[in-house]
Amino acid sequence: MNVFIIGIGLIGGSMALDIQEKYPKAKIYGIDTKEAHLDEALKLGVIHQKSSFKELDKAEIVIVSIPVDAQIEVLPKVLNIVNDDTLVMDVGSTKELICKTLEKHPKRRNFLATHPIAGTEFSGPSAAIKGLFKDKTNIICEVEKTAFQLQEKALGIFATLGMRIRYMDAHSHDKHIAYVSHLSHISSFMLGKTVIEKEQNERDIFDMAGSGFESTVRLAKSSPAMWTPIFEQNKENVIETLEKYINNLEEFKSLMQQDKFSEIFQKMKSTNHIKQILNGIK
Amino acid sequence: MNVFIIGIGLIGGSMALDIQEKYPKAKIYGIDTKEAHLDEALKLGVIHQKSSFKELDKAEIVIVSIPVDAQIEVLPKVLNIVNDDTLVMDVGSTKELICKTLEKHPKRRNFLATHPIAGTEFSGPSAAIKGLFKDKTNIICEVEKTAFQLQEKALGIFATLGMRIRYMDAHSHDKHIAYVSHLSHISSFMLGKTVIEKEQNERDIFDMAGSGFESTVRLAKSSPAMWTPIFEQNKENVIETLEKYINNLEEFKSLMQQDKFSEIFQKMKSTNHIKQILNGIK
Repeated sequence: MNVFIIGIGLIGGSMALDIQEKYPKAKIYGIDTKEAHLDEALKLGVIHQKSSFKELDKAEIVIVSIPVDAQIEVLPKVLNIVNDDTLVMDVGSTKELICKTLEKHPKRRNFLATHPIAGTEFSGPSAAIKGLFKDKTNIICEVEKTAFQLQEKALGIFATLGMRIRYMDAHSHDKHIAYVSHLSHISSFMLGKTVIEKEQNERDIFDMAGSGFESTVRLAKSSPAMWTPIFEQNKENVIETLEKYINNLEEFKSLMQQDKFSEIFQKMKSTNHIKQILNGIK
Repeated sequence: MNVFIIGIGLIGGSMALDIQEKYPKAKIYGIDTKEAHLDEALKLGVIHQKSSFKELDKAEIVIVSIPVDAQIEVLPKVLNIVNDDTLVMDVGSTKELICKTLEKHPKRRNFLATHPIAGTEFSGPSAAIKGLFKDKTNIICEVEKTAFQLQEKALGIFATLGMRIRYMDAHSHDKHIAYVSHLSHISSFMLGKTVIEKEQNERDIFDMAGSGFESTVRLAKSSPAMWTPIFEQNKENVIETLEKYINNLEEFKSLMQQDKFSEIFQKMKSTNHIKQILNGIK
């Protein structure tokens, strides 16, 4: 099984590691715009061989794990090259524009739109880890547009990697994911920015910050190259979430200014209910 | 060594467990407004004996770990009862009002104002865990107002529990902690609220939310009874942090609306620097 990974970072690299482990006969080819990433991935054993677009015609599976703006450019080219029975998947955090871009591509049936809800705040080949996808959700969009045999092939791999599947239309995906993922990243980045701006003497942050702060700003370590195009592609939905979030913060501030602390208590109390929701994630 | 813990929750209970382990001869007395908490703490082995204010005259050390509004009421009463050589400590997340309240108390020298930067999002006696304070920072305010021998006694215990000490005036403490702790809790609570409001069909949250969301909303599980009085006592500073945070979010939104994504990239890039700051926390 020849598997080509385009973009050997956190997601692509982790997929490569899991596929190697679960399919000992699989040969993993790596393609990346950064030669240094390929060298590193080879050295770390994430891929078996460096490769290029010219070799894509011998791929059985192509996993494209690159920033979502690059997906729009790269996916049509990949589909142009691959064989009729090759499975091509993306793993991007937005789905609507990607699906729309490929809507009329002659090889649309070779493509499966996926979004594995997995990751860490790290990036690059060294961020690749085994078992990243175990017990995680993989959202598949417009499954009906993919050839049945290729659906089966993909689902077989996802099952082997331990993932749960959820089907969704691309529009709904982008709307919901703005709330449960994209907004978290902005809240975290802006929290980090607010504190850094204030605390110019960093020793104060070092010494006073605890695990709570660490947890809320963890995502501010994420890659801007990956996240900027996500916000761009999901602009309308993300702006909506930001507006609702800012409104809630404004309301909280206003209640504080009016000394309405019993209402603040109630607001927090009714949000505590997130416990049960988070238990569902685990 | 008779140690009285007033308020057997996450912090008081965890202190009780560590002191038991490190000082096998210590006898831990528990005082709590909730009889059920005392019973639970006794059953869990967090305390050795249930007690009451009447017995405080036999205390060598009193640790008051209750919400900060209750501290203002309880600490003066405790100081009224204890002996001249008893050490009384609070562990609250605000320091200015507490220090001010005790400023002229005849037993001010028996009191040490502390804030161990440690905790989890859980509460109650069952939240008590061993080793919570190891390698954590303990901020001590107005140390010079505490009797020298009692300072020594407290520092000995903190060292035994594995804590690093940092001295600060109460005003600076409240100003900085608003940024690195209090704001995180509000951002997390309001993020949870925003998502819950939108996603009335919770299945969508369950299935699409990943570890990133979980990390940013973790603090929204925290106790409103503990946090409401913290926000009230630190009102001015917290409102300042909220304003700066909201401004940063507004700016981010405005850049998105104007399609200025290269500026958004730069904003995130310059915040990535939080990595080094967080490495300092660990």
